[in-house]
Parts: sequence; C-alpha cells; structure tokens
Amino acid sequence: MTRNIQPITLKDVQTAHKRIAPIVKSSPLIFSPTLSEIAGTSIYLKLENLNVSGSFKIRGAANKMLSLTPEQQKRGVTTFSTGNFGMSVAYLAKELGMKAVICISGRVPKAKVDLIRDMGAQIEVIGQSQDDAQEYSYQLEKEHGLTVIHPFDDSEVIAGQGTIGLELLEDLPGLDTVIGGLSGGGLHSGMGVALKSMEPKLKLLGVSTARGATMYESIKQGKPVVVQEQDTLADSLLGGIGENNQYTFKMVQQYVDEIILLGEEPIAEGMNFMLEKHRLVIEGAAASGIGAILHDKAPLGSNVAIIISGCSVDTSVIMDIANKYLSKFPDF
Amino acid sequence: MTRNIQPITLKDVQTAHKRIAPIVKSSPLIFSPTLSEIAGTSIYLKLENLNVSGSFKIRGAANKMLSLTPEQQKRGVTTFSTGNFGMSVAYLAKELGMKAVICISGRVPKAKVDLIRDMGAQIEVIGQSQDDAQEYSYQLEKEHGLTVIHPFDDSEVIAGQGTIGLELLEDLPGLDTVIGGLSGGGLHSGMGVALKSMEPKLKLLGVSTARGATMYESIKQGKPVVVQEQDTLADSLLGGIGENNQYTFKMVQQYVDEIILLGEEPIAEGMNFMLEKHRLVIEGAAASGIGAILHDKAPLGSNVAIIISGCSVDTSVIMDIANKYLSKFPDF
Repeated sequence: MTRNIQPITLKDVQTAHKRIAPIVKSSPLIFSPTLSEIAGTSIYLKLENLNVSGSFKIRGAANKMLSLTPEQQKRGVTTFSTGNFGMSVAYLAKELGMKAVICISGRVPKAKVDLIRDMGAQIEVIGQSQDDAQEYSYQLEKEHGLTVIHPFDDSEVIAGQGTIGLELLEDLPGLDTVIGGLSGGGLHSGMGVALKSMEPKLKLLGVSTARGATMYESIKQGKPVVVQEQDTLADSLLGGIGENNQYTFKMVQQYVDEIILLGEEPIAEGMNFMLEKHRLVIEGAAASGIGAILHDKAPLGSNVAIIISGCSVDTSVIMDIANKYLSKFPDF
Repeated sequence: MTRNIQPITLKDVQTAHKRIAPIVKSSPLIFSPTLSEIAGTSIYLKLENLNVSGSFKIRGAANKMLSLTPEQQKRGVTTFSTGNFGMSVAYLAKELGMKAVICISGRVPKAKVDLIRDMGAQIEVIGQSQDDAQEYSYQLEKEHGLTVIHPFDDSEVIAGQGTIGLELLEDLPGLDTVIGGLSGGGLHSGMGVALKSMEPKLKLLGVSTARGATMYESIKQGKPVVVQEQDTLADSLLGGIGENNQYTFKMVQQYVDEIILLGEEPIAEGMNFMLEKHRLVIEGAAASGIGAILHDKAPLGSNVAIIISGCSVDTSVIMDIANKYLSKFPDF
C-alpha cells in the first residue's frame, strides 16, 4: 500500500531543528589529528554518541513526538526498535510526560530491556522476532490509539536526523565529505536533504556491514529486498528496510554517492582507534566511518566529517577489542 | 623572591577567552541523567577531556604562548610538566610553528615521552626527579632565551584556565556549584576569578587525592608546604605547589569553598561510572568530582557542573578498573 508521499525538504529539516532545540543540543564536532595524519586530509568527528540517549536517534524521535497533535501526545506512542531508537523514545517519553510502549521480541538481551525499563517506558515482550514486535506495535495503534513511530521510514523522523547536516554546515566551513553508518537510511535521507540542498557538490558516503547490507543490495537491485543477516559488531546496522519502504530507499538512491561494505576487522579497528586515540567507547556502527578510512576504502575530499552515531555496546565487547589490539598500537 | 604581583581579574580571563578562541573551542557541557538521579540534583559534565590535547591545560598554555612577544615566540618556550601540560605545550608549539623544549626526568614512562615526541616537541631527559627537570628548564631560559611556562603558577596560564568558568556561566543558567580536581590550583584560581566575579554566591569545590594533598595541607597550615606523595590513580593531582608560590596558594585560599580529600576507591568508581554510563575513558584526576558525589562527600546546590579535566590514562589501567567493577554495576 503506497500512500501519496510528499517529498521532504530543507525547510522540513530547518523546522525540525527549531522544534527539537529545547531538548536536543547541537552535538560537538572535534578534530582528529591522528586520523587526519593517517588519511592526509582534515578529518572531524561529529559526536552523536554524546547525546543524552547515547545516539543520534533522539533527533528523529524528538521531531516526531513533538510534532504530534496534543490529542496524539495524550494517547501516547509505540515503537518496535529495541536499540538506540527505542532508548531515545523511552527517554523522550519520560521527559515529555508521554506514555510509550516499546515492543520487543523475546530474543532481546535482558540488559537492553532493563535499560529501556529504567527510562520508565512500558515494555511488551512479543514473539521471537522483530517482525512480531512490529506487528504488535501496529496492533496497539489500531486498538489503543497509540501512534506508531517508525524508527526510520517516517518523514518527521528523517527530517529530525537531517538536523545533523545543518549543524555540520554551520560548524565546518568547507565541508565536502560526510561519511556514516548506513542501515535503514533515515540518517542519510535526512542529511542528504540538508547537505545537498545547501552544498550540491558535497559527497555523502554510507558504510554498511557486509554481514547484512540490506540497503546496499536493494540499491543494487533497484528495489527493496530482504537479505540474510549474520551477527556483526555493527549490530545497529542490521535490520530490513521494509518491502513497502516509503521514503528512505528512494532518498538513499538520490542522495548517497557511494555505499562502502566493511568486514568485521575494520569495524573493530575503528572501535579500537576511538578508544585509544580519542578515549571514547563507541558501538560498531559508529566506528564504521573510521574503519573505512583506516582501510583506505572511502574517497575523501579536503574537509571530512564522520558521524559517530552512538555508544550502545557492551563493555565486555570493547574490552575484548582493546585486549586484541593493545599490542598492535602504542598505548596512549 | 617575591615579585610585586598584580591580581588577576575577570577582564584578564575575558581577554584570554578571546585570545585562545581561534585555537581552543568551547568544550561541550552534557547532562548526566544517572548521576543526577543518584545525587538528587541536576548534574552536568564539562568535557575538557575532548580538547584536542586531551585536557583543559591547553587553555592556559595557549593563553600564555599567544601572549608572548613576537621575539619571545621566535626564541621558543620550555616547560617542565610531563603530563597534560607538556602535551598541550607540545601540541600548540606544532600548531603555532614555535620551538618547544619539554624537560622531563628519567623516571617518566616511555609511552608518555613518545607521545610528546610525536607532537614534534624536543625532549630533554634530565636527572631523576621533577625538580631536576624544572631546574633545567630555567637554565634553558637563562642560557638560550627560551621562555619558561610554569604549568600553573603563572598569571596568563591561570587566566586561560579561567575561561572554563566563562563557558559554564554562559551554557548553564542557574549554575550554583562547580567541582573539579585540585592540584597546583591553576584551574581553581582561574575559575574562581571568573565564577565568583560574576556569581559571588556560587560554591567552588576542589577534590584532591589523599595520597598527596599538597594544596589542602598548605591551606590548612596557612603557607605552602611539601607533603610526602604516594602513587595514586589521580596522578595528575600530584606535585608540589612551590615554596615561592606566587599566585595559586592565595587564590585558592580566596576562592575555593571546600577541599574534599578522596581515597583510591571513589576515584576508581568515578572512572568506572564514566566508562559505564557515559562511555568516556577519563583519568583519575578527572573522575575525582564524580567519585566525591558518588560517595556523598560534596555539598551540592541545584545546578552542579563537574570539570572532567582530562583523559590521559593507560588503557590497561581503565581495563583493570572495568574488570573489577563489571560485576558491580549492570552493563550498559
């Protein structure tokens, strides 16, 4: 069922930026001397991991939740993401005094469930797959009037993620390359609108995990497809884009200049680099841009920004990586 | 030998802020939901660890180096800090095309020496103690015309560190408590001028390590004293304040409302908290404010800022701490 879709515009992103400003502060952009030296160009890091919910997802969630009617806000929201988007919706619901039901499958690890519950959100454990959770979310909408917030394929969510692009253009004159982890495409769709409306020649690069590159395969085949997924360090980059994808498939087609596929090794090296050189613990998806540059897989301009998208990773995982690489790199 | 000392004023700090702006960007201030809940008040973190040199010390070093005459700049600078201040001077010297000689004792670990050398600074290894290094630094000034930059007891360095206070007042309306690691007192002297000139009722708290609390003992005895030091996780808080202390002893006397002494356990817990809850690797000195609050040792107002001063810590140290506490706290 395809609805009549209105294109998302720069103005939508600008409106989103104003709307979320009271809740979501501009995130820091820092220079990376070491990575710049390695790559032979100027590289900056957009630290979305420092957002209060631990990822950029709070931008889209905030724009969506704040643009609901008072009546919708009163009834509450539901979503079926179990990761960073679920965390962001749970955090915002608490801040805004809104009801939120996060639907998850029985396979989600207890630690993540506890974290979302700590935020004060209601959790419904349904079935054994993400599809079951999604279905139940839409059932709640139908039966209880909650508004489903789709984690990426939603115009307000996309416009919210696009606000990163506005901040980058403001903070970094001469910016010509933006690179970040690509999954459902909400981030790249929103950034694409903002960045290419204002700087048409700017290159927007996506990095996906070779262990589940749904968007990459979909673009290649010219339509949304389903791919087989395997466990990966960049778990936030997994997940389908939906056979009835409304926005992000076409927007990624339009705005993303190149999708780079990465194996596990460069992702781990990216995580270790951030730990060693910038003392930041980040998740695999957030390290994908670093990994692509360390392995010389990304075509770079003169002023490059990498989206450090989030920090949701078990401490045991980062410690395993640190143990593995401690001998390879000189200690800080 | 006591010179005629001009007091450092708010205007000096404001001038410093303008002077260093092209090199030192305003650092991020983030909210800590978990720590706020634990302490029952609003707690924010000033992330000086994200400065390009890894600590707040770049502020004072930049203000000093940029206020030298062209002739002095041409001859170069020398300092005798081996930690964060040495790193900052080395980084700035490279950026500004200035010569820098960092004097260190033979006891400084190779990893730190390599790091400073990587920044392009010249290193002189002299004797077996910090005093030997300091002496040699002044000898270089005398014989080669280099300007010694004292790591804390210098009016331009103090004014530079004070710029943190200006940023805090700008970013956090209602700020009433500031807490941070106290050692030589450059940070608290500078912040004291800025904060108390503008908000006289604001409380400024210092946290020192019980394993070498020189400033604490000096204040207690009413004059600069020497104390026996032991190894501590908060190694950046060690070091004397100088028997001929010119500025910081009196300024800490004037501006700091309370000095809190911490043992190793709260410092380690503070480092672990930042790793687990904010995914930031910070050094012990930077975690002292967190540790003091976790152990309910700090009198807090309604809007509290903690100075997260730096991130110079061996990865092996942070991993040992993570291993120790991993079972105590739920994982992220």
